Amino acid sequence: MASITFTDYASSATARLLPFTGTNFRSNGVVFFRRLVNPLSVRTTSFRSLTIRSSSTSPPVVTAAMGSEAVAKVIDGKLVTKKIREEITAEVSKMKDEIGVVPGLAVILVGERKDSATYVRNKKKACESHMNEQKILNAVSIEKDVDGFHPLNIGRLAMRGREPLFVPCTPKGCIELLHRYGVEIKGKRAAVIGRSNIVGMPAALLLQREDATISIVHSRTKNPEEITRQADIIIAAVGQPNMVKGNWIKPGAVIIDVGINPVEDSKSARGYRLVGDVCYEEACKVASAITPVPGGVGPMTIAMLLSNTLSSAKRINNLQ
Amino acid sequence: MASITFTDYASSATARLLPFTGTNFRSNGVVFFRRLVNPLSVRTTSFRSLTIRSSSTSPPVVTAAMGSEAVAKVIDGKLVTKKIREEITAEVSKMKDEIGVVPGLAVILVGERKDSATYVRNKKKACESHMNEQKILNAVSIEKDVDGFHPLNIGRLAMRGREPLFVPCTPKGCIELLHRYGVEIKGKRAAVIGRSNIVGMPAALLLQREDATISIVHSRTKNPEEITRQADIIIAAVGQPNMVKGNWIKPGAVIIDVGINPVEDSKSARGYRLVGDVCYEEACKVASAITPVPGGVGPMTIAMLLSNTLSSAKRINNLQ
Repeated sequence: MASITFTDYASSATARLLPFTGTNFRSNGVVFFRRLVNPLSVRTTSFRSLTIRSSSTSPPVVTAAMGSEAVAKVIDGKLVTKKIREEITAEVSKMKDEIGVVPGLAVILVGERKDSATYVRNKKKACESHMNEQKILNAVSIEKDVDGFHPLNIGRLAMRGREPLFVPCTPKGCIELLHRYGVEIKGKRAAVIGRSNIVGMPAALLLQREDATISIVHSRTKNPEEITRQADIIIAAVGQPNMVKGNWIKPGAVIIDVGINPVEDSKSARGYRLVGDVCYEEACKVASAITPVPGGVGPMTIAMLLSNTLSSAKRINNLQ
Repeated sequence: MASITFTDYASSATARLLPFTGTNFRSNGVVFFRRLVNPLSVRTTSFRSLTIRSSSTSPPVVTAAMGSEAVAKVIDGKLVTKKIREEITAEVSKMKDEIGVVPGLAVILVGERKDSATYVRNKKKACESHMNEQKILNAVSIEKDVDGFHPLNIGRLAMRGREPLFVPCTPKGCIELLHRYGVEIKGKRAAVIGRSNIVGMPAALLLQREDATISIVHSRTKNPEEITRQADIIIAAVGQPNMVKGNWIKPGAVIIDVGINPVEDSKSARGYRLVGDVCYEEACKVASAITPVPGGVGPMTIAMLLSNTLSSAKRINNLQ
């Protein structure tokens, strides 16, 4: 795990504290958002095997433009993220008006993780101190654990009848995409590929909380393609470029691809391009809906971090 | 959930505190053990589809005597429990000799649960006070949470690289039976039927920690028999008498039946008999090994509670 994020109202020697504003930029791991000019247009649709609820808040549907055979609709994380940031902006404005408080977010980076070359480069710059990840995590007050990584939050997430204070951002973003695109989860078979503490495991727990029947595929699974092929919903979070092939996918399945893997590409100015854990070119011909990489789950993670930060600030200030 | 158990060295107005002794009796929910006269005899075997490790500590193998077609070996919880209690007795004696301390176990019962008529009857007698289960659980120090039900323990159980202080007794007993009978878990497909906080969910987490590929079947699962039929290991913990039929079972699978369900039986003096979640008569003709009900998982739960209590006492007294 790479970054530890928490909210606070006090400044710290090791953490930068910045208020939310109305502009959109990144600085040292802290991300801001801006208000959108145009609301999302609305169109309803039905997918092949899963029931898609029509909703006045559903994002528009775009078919994956990877060739004439593509049937999958694109689950557009960027578009959904814009909508969510709008909603958060409105709530922050309201909060500021009502009690004069603006949520703050402080970030400590520990260790390394190659989610993307850019990310690693930035972290190397930002993070020279060597700290114990477990100690840091345990030291964060659970009320400020906006990453949702504290074992107490994970325990509550796993237990029926309990509520975590925060849900880890990336898996929360995956489920939010399914919700915003009206994908029915209850009673569906779901395969989660990867069992990491920060994505796979909590994603499986979240799907189970919504009454999906989950199977968790990992490095020791002998027949991953067989299990994956039974799933109505696939969440791939394993960090292996293009691992999930077209023949792993049940026709009409919905695919959430969490992977962000750099692969060499001499045509790119950077020398590499980013691909997911799912072979998009093949999957978009079989699935009913799929997230692109980049532009799928990636931006949702940051949006969910903002959402958790807002929740934390509201809770601490006794706002509903 | 019915009972909350914790260890303590101080007496309390609401809890009885009793030392471990060398006798075997139950009193108000507190269970003691006795030293066995004869060690378990040893025989090695191989099952049909799973690799069974030969081990000098394996219990003897008995074929399910339900008719000439029975192929399943009986996983004898009573026998394993005796062995474990022997081991615990030896450790407690050693602890007493070394530091003069004997582990103590105190029990508070809250609410109701129909695991068996006897159990409920005893609880009704013992438990008239109405208490909030969540508050009680949260008030128990994690160092004394020998039931392993605290969300912090569950969170650590779910997370890779983390260790819970205690593992919930019944699922721990299930895994212990698999271990003692040399059933290989790593890389195997496992179906857990039921997702309760006290059995199904932690059992799935434990199997995953041992590198099984888990699927969790529950009341919202549309095709439970199809998923169960793919499993090399089945843990049934759903509280439905004889729900898992013979045709739900892959030939050679190993079955751990957690269910203890009373069904009417006019031939019994009590008017009922206890059956599992698995139809034993059918399953024993298909599975390679199966726990009986009663005499399978049931006695293991108490043995694991003693094991957790011993661990707690050792940890508090800085013994390894």
